[in-house]
Amino acid sequence: MLKLGVIGYGYWGPNILRNFSSQPGCRVAAICDKNPKALARALSLHPAVYATSDLDEVTGSPEIDAVAIVTPVSTHYDLAKKALENGKHVFVEKPFTATSAQAEELIELADRKNLVVMVDHTFLFTGAVRKIKELVDGGALGPLYYYDSTRVNLGLFQHDVNVIWDLAPHDLSIMDYLIGLEPEMVVATAGAHLNGLEDVGYMTLYFPNSVIAHINVNWLSPVKVRTTLVGGQRRMLVWNDLEPAEKIKIYDKGVEVGTEQGVHQLLVSYRSGDMWAPKVEETEALQLETRYFLDCVAEGKRPFNDGRAGLRVVRMLEAAEESLKRRKEIVYASSH
Amino acid sequence: MLKLGVIGYGYWGPNILRNFSSQPGCRVAAICDKNPKALARALSLHPAVYATSDLDEVTGSPEIDAVAIVTPVSTHYDLAKKALENGKHVFVEKPFTATSAQAEELIELADRKNLVVMVDHTFLFTGAVRKIKELVDGGALGPLYYYDSTRVNLGLFQHDVNVIWDLAPHDLSIMDYLIGLEPEMVVATAGAHLNGLEDVGYMTLYFPNSVIAHINVNWLSPVKVRTTLVGGQRRMLVWNDLEPAEKIKIYDKGVEVGTEQGVHQLLVSYRSGDMWAPKVEETEALQLETRYFLDCVAEGKRPFNDGRAGLRVVRMLEAAEESLKRRKEIVYASSH
Amino acid sequence: MLKLGVIGYGYWGPNILRNFSSQPGCRVAAICDKNPKALARALSLHPAVYATSDLDEVTGSPEIDAVAIVTPVSTHYDLAKKALENGKHVFVEKPFTATSAQAEELIELADRKNLVVMVDHTFLFTGAVRKIKELVDGGALGPLYYYDSTRVNLGLFQHDVNVIWDLAPHDLSIMDYLIGLEPEMVVATAGAHLNGLEDVGYMTLYFPNSVIAHINVNWLSPVKVRTTLVGGQRRMLVWNDLEPAEKIKIYDKGVEVGTEQGVHQLLVSYRSGDMWAPKVEETEALQLETRYFLDCVAEGKRPFNDGRAGLRVVRMLEAAEESLKRRKEIVYASSH
Amino acid sequence: MLKLGVIGYGYWGPNILRNFSSQPGCRVAAICDKNPKALARALSLHPAVYATSDLDEVTGSPEIDAVAIVTPVSTHYDLAKKALENGKHVFVEKPFTATSAQAEELIELADRKNLVVMVDHTFLFTGAVRKIKELVDGGALGPLYYYDSTRVNLGLFQHDVNVIWDLAPHDLSIMDYLIGLEPEMVVATAGAHLNGLEDVGYMTLYFPNSVIAHINVNWLSPVKVRTTLVGGQRRMLVWNDLEPAEKIKIYDKGVEVGTEQGVHQLLVSYRSGDMWAPKVEETEALQLETRYFLDCVAEGKRPFNDGRAGLRVVRMLEAAEESLKRRKEIVYASSH
Repeated sequence: MLKLGVIGYGYWGPNILRNFSSQPGCRVAAICDKNPKALARALSLHPAVYATSDLDEVTGSPEIDAVAIVTPVSTHYDLAKKALENGKHVFVEKPFTATSAQAEELIELADRKNLVVMVDHTFLFTGAVRKIKELVDGGALGPLYYYDSTRVNLGLFQHDVNVIWDLAPHDLSIMDYLIGLEPEMVVATAGAHLNGLEDVGYMTLYFPNSVIAHINVNWLSPVKVRTTLVGGQRRMLVWNDLEPAEKIKIYDKGVEVGTEQGVHQLLVSYRSGDMWAPKVEETEALQLETRYFLDCVAEGKRPFNDGRAGLRVVRMLEAAEESLKRRKEIVYASSH
Repeated sequence: MLKLGVIGYGYWGPNILRNFSSQPGCRVAAICDKNPKALARALSLHPAVYATSDLDEVTGSPEIDAVAIVTPVSTHYDLAKKALENGKHVFVEKPFTATSAQAEELIELADRKNLVVMVDHTFLFTGAVRKIKELVDGGALGPLYYYDSTRVNLGLFQHDVNVIWDLAPHDLSIMDYLIGLEPEMVVATAGAHLNGLEDVGYMTLYFPNSVIAHINVNWLSPVKVRTTLVGGQRRMLVWNDLEPAEKIKIYDKGVEVGTEQGVHQLLVSYRSGDMWAPKVEETEALQLETRYFLDCVAEGKRPFNDGRAGLRVVRMLEAAEESLKRRKEIVYASSH
Repeated sequence: MLKLGVIGYGYWGPNILRNFSSQPGCRVAAICDKNPKALARALSLHPAVYATSDLDEVTGSPEIDAVAIVTPVSTHYDLAKKALENGKHVFVEKPFTATSAQAEELIELADRKNLVVMVDHTFLFTGAVRKIKELVDGGALGPLYYYDSTRVNLGLFQHDVNVIWDLAPHDLSIMDYLIGLEPEMVVATAGAHLNGLEDVGYMTLYFPNSVIAHINVNWLSPVKVRTTLVGGQRRMLVWNDLEPAEKIKIYDKGVEVGTEQGVHQLLVSYRSGDMWAPKVEETEALQLETRYFLDCVAEGKRPFNDGRAGLRVVRMLEAAEESLKRRKEIVYASSH
Repeated sequence: MLKLGVIGYGYWGPNILRNFSSQPGCRVAAICDKNPKALARALSLHPAVYATSDLDEVTGSPEIDAVAIVTPVSTHYDLAKKALENGKHVFVEKPFTATSAQAEELIELADRKNLVVMVDHTFLFTGAVRKIKELVDGGALGPLYYYDSTRVNLGLFQHDVNVIWDLAPHDLSIMDYLIGLEPEMVVATAGAHLNGLEDVGYMTLYFPNSVIAHINVNWLSPVKVRTTLVGGQRRMLVWNDLEPAEKIKIYDKGVEVGTEQGVHQLLVSYRSGDMWAPKVEETEALQLETRYFLDCVAEGKRPFNDGRAGLRVVRMLEAAEESLKRRKEIVYASSH
């Protein structure tokens, strides 16, 4: 029986608490939050859990085997470090850390202590992403051409991170999972209109083998969009996460370049066949992910969404930050 | 009665010929194309038009008052120059020219000779764009925040220009029209997968007053998308050009930042009200635009979509080209 | 403080219990169900409620002021009668009763005892229906022409009633509310394919003033549809209850018949203007309805969704039943 | 070389003329219309065709082998009879005739004279209907349960026939083609709001083997809908004719009724799998149909959309008419 402490009971914490609570072989022993109202809410649903505002009662308790860190990103490093130093496995919200140096240190620490670190890249456990992974790995799409995601809506404005740090980690973790390579170059552009933090942002990632990825994130859109296009040589797919049914549509469409001799212009021909929407499993992603965490701890396995996966996402975010920063220097230097 | 010569009868030429032919006060006197089959097609629909493969019979004919240039962009400069030098008004396809230097020279020449140059930014004459212009100018959206366009489909692959030069001019001319300012900086990213020309491309344009614009163009998309989001301080709109009705939806939605004293975090509040889809006029854009060209010639007026408007679009395309080129240098220099 | 007993804790019971529990001035004193598992589920969420499988402990208890009857329709009459005879107000699921005779008897009984009967026509309390009612009563649509609803999906098959008794009461109660008149004639058609009960059904209702209503209900549809068209002389609206936003779209469209003299053919002209999607309130319907029940009891008011409203819906269902039955006689009699 | 005369050049005539004109082995020799403007329009596009307002020059001309009758239904019988009597093959608009007696007479006459009669049930030649026919005949859907079509929009109001005679023939001819059986009973309901003709109508058709069909036609709908659901035991499909791509979606969904012994309630279980949108051919239906007419004439074949198919549709329309009429009698008789 693994005894878990949950730190943070804000927007996402209730889902973490509910899912770990319902897993066989796991008992949520403690919940920690500085906000007494949050603790009261947690207790009303989970009366048997010990509630505290003292972090050390969780990260330092000999009763606790693992901690789930569900707090703002700026606190992840300190909390995870303390937990790991005290010999506890760690389940931590995305993005893993605020800097890649922090991530590297935590990875090294966990390795040394032989502890599991799992970063909550929840989308990797959805039926949709698991189906797309299966299609990509099985060759249904052929070699990939591009990954293009739009993730926009009105709000929720964050006060500590910009729209790229807030929304892009979902797509970065998914493309990291699907493409299996690190980008060669990252270009980001963004605009800020309200509280100084970027609320509209774009990222392009150049991967090896001419794979290009693009992310469009926006807190100021009048409509909610969650649509990703994935283009391959053989087939292309559209994933619309807002569709209640038929989230993924696979198009038997493609382009071929002919090689006829003596022709000046390249012959580009189009192929257009059936569309197919495979059934997508509907099990709650977090249920599968929390189960997977418990299994990794029990069997001493390293999860695929481990600290290294978290580090790769943080590196892409840092590269975006750097790209934005350089641009600003150029902007102010230029005179039109 | 203005006598017009049309040069080029490929994909778009038939529309130009049909529209000018039906305008009162205009007679299409000659059609020129190197391809005999194209001429035959033109004659079958317009038997009274003189058909020729000799350019000089159009640009040099004393019978002809104006020419419509409906050929690939690489030929625009030579054809327009010859026509202007021979005292003819010019209606020319977008993009205006292959370089801004060419555009500047043609503008200077037309000014000197007091001739009309109109660049065929057809979208500016659609009911949708005219309605959006009216909303922006009337203050319905408030100060603009962003313009974000997605223009993707499968093909048609071009052999002489990449996807940005092919598709982005539509959006560049529209945003130039709506925003009324030139961008301070342009960032472009793109990928090429088939014949060496970029088939997936992205542009970000930074305008004064924190207005940011973004364009997503793609020849390799399994689905056709023609959607533009325009966000302003007061309201936001979605323009879906594929909708048969309700092309424009205006959302009474917005975000406000509070300024309460003594509060650490900025208070961001959301406003969400009605949606409204104004009726959009359905007159064919090219009918209005060809009428406007004839009126400008008759009244000696300079059109708003003149050579200068064409030049501004070419400058943005050149900036995108330059941005892409610099990136390539960096890519090859870097070792991951 | 009104003390309520809830009878039945199946599919809908939990919503009734949750909503009454959260209302000020109301205490759910007892919950009754024959199924011990259902009672256990109720207790896990509402530990303070008295749980019993003995109906008399609810309908007969002097501690209880009102009962909510959330059981299959065949039991409504007996339960409501017992409750009313014992002086309790009654909140009862739709359809009110299995026959109009039962409904009439209950209405008479409640009137005599001065007790409130409310039939749970939940949809009348949704933001969408309240907005449509406001538009109809305010004359925005003009005199009504038709009401046409499609309510189809895969399952859930009922074992005691056919698809018309299962799904049509929603639409019947809504049209009764909007039109405010009783139908002059009801025609129903239907087909049965699996367990002998009709799984595909259609109703047409002829109202005075040439208002026609139509309902399409189907348990065997591969897609879920919840769309209603309401046409009036001045405007028409589409209510799509599956839209997360913009549930109601009002079209400034219409048809006018000219009266030009001497013209053989009537001149029919079309008017087509803007579309408008008013913001629809999102408060849970059952929260408003349970509040309204408590207020009616407290103030001795007769609710607009009283037993008479329930009776009108039952009458339409009976008429449909009769129409179906007559058809069957004809079918078997005919030889093609 | 078959020489064809076309009678009627209104809304649909231009399509008939254009398609027959472009068929090898066919020459449109004459076009007849009472309206001189219509003839002028025809001549501007087809200058070589002989234009006349005298019917006898077409139906009586020894130069002409076949006539296409593209006039209002009330005239079909007289025109077709005259043409057949003069030994001409006949291509005639839907619905075939105004009464089933007329249709029977024409069939008998054509049989006797060994002439081809084809009724223009255009939809049967669309890629969508041919694909659905292939799916039904191949058993992909299993035994059919229902066919449910919605065909609504604003206008075009007809002056001679009601909305059922105007729009339902499309669906009636399609269901006749797909189901392959004649209905056992027809029930129609309808409302009239403007010029005395029904503008909103509903038909239910009971076929053998519990197949039920339903048609919803409406000239007063603010939105255009062209959606048909076809449910079978194995699979179900949705045909949305307004979708530019993916017109047909086949759902691997179904319901099964268990037969467990000793269980009171029937066990109904749901099956929900993939969705699949087969590519649908885009050749213009009328091109295939006019080709088929010419082939039938050349080879002396009887078309599947012959006079008998036309008669079956007219019979269903007559049954609907009869059903509506009886209802009216009842309405006026009843006092609520």
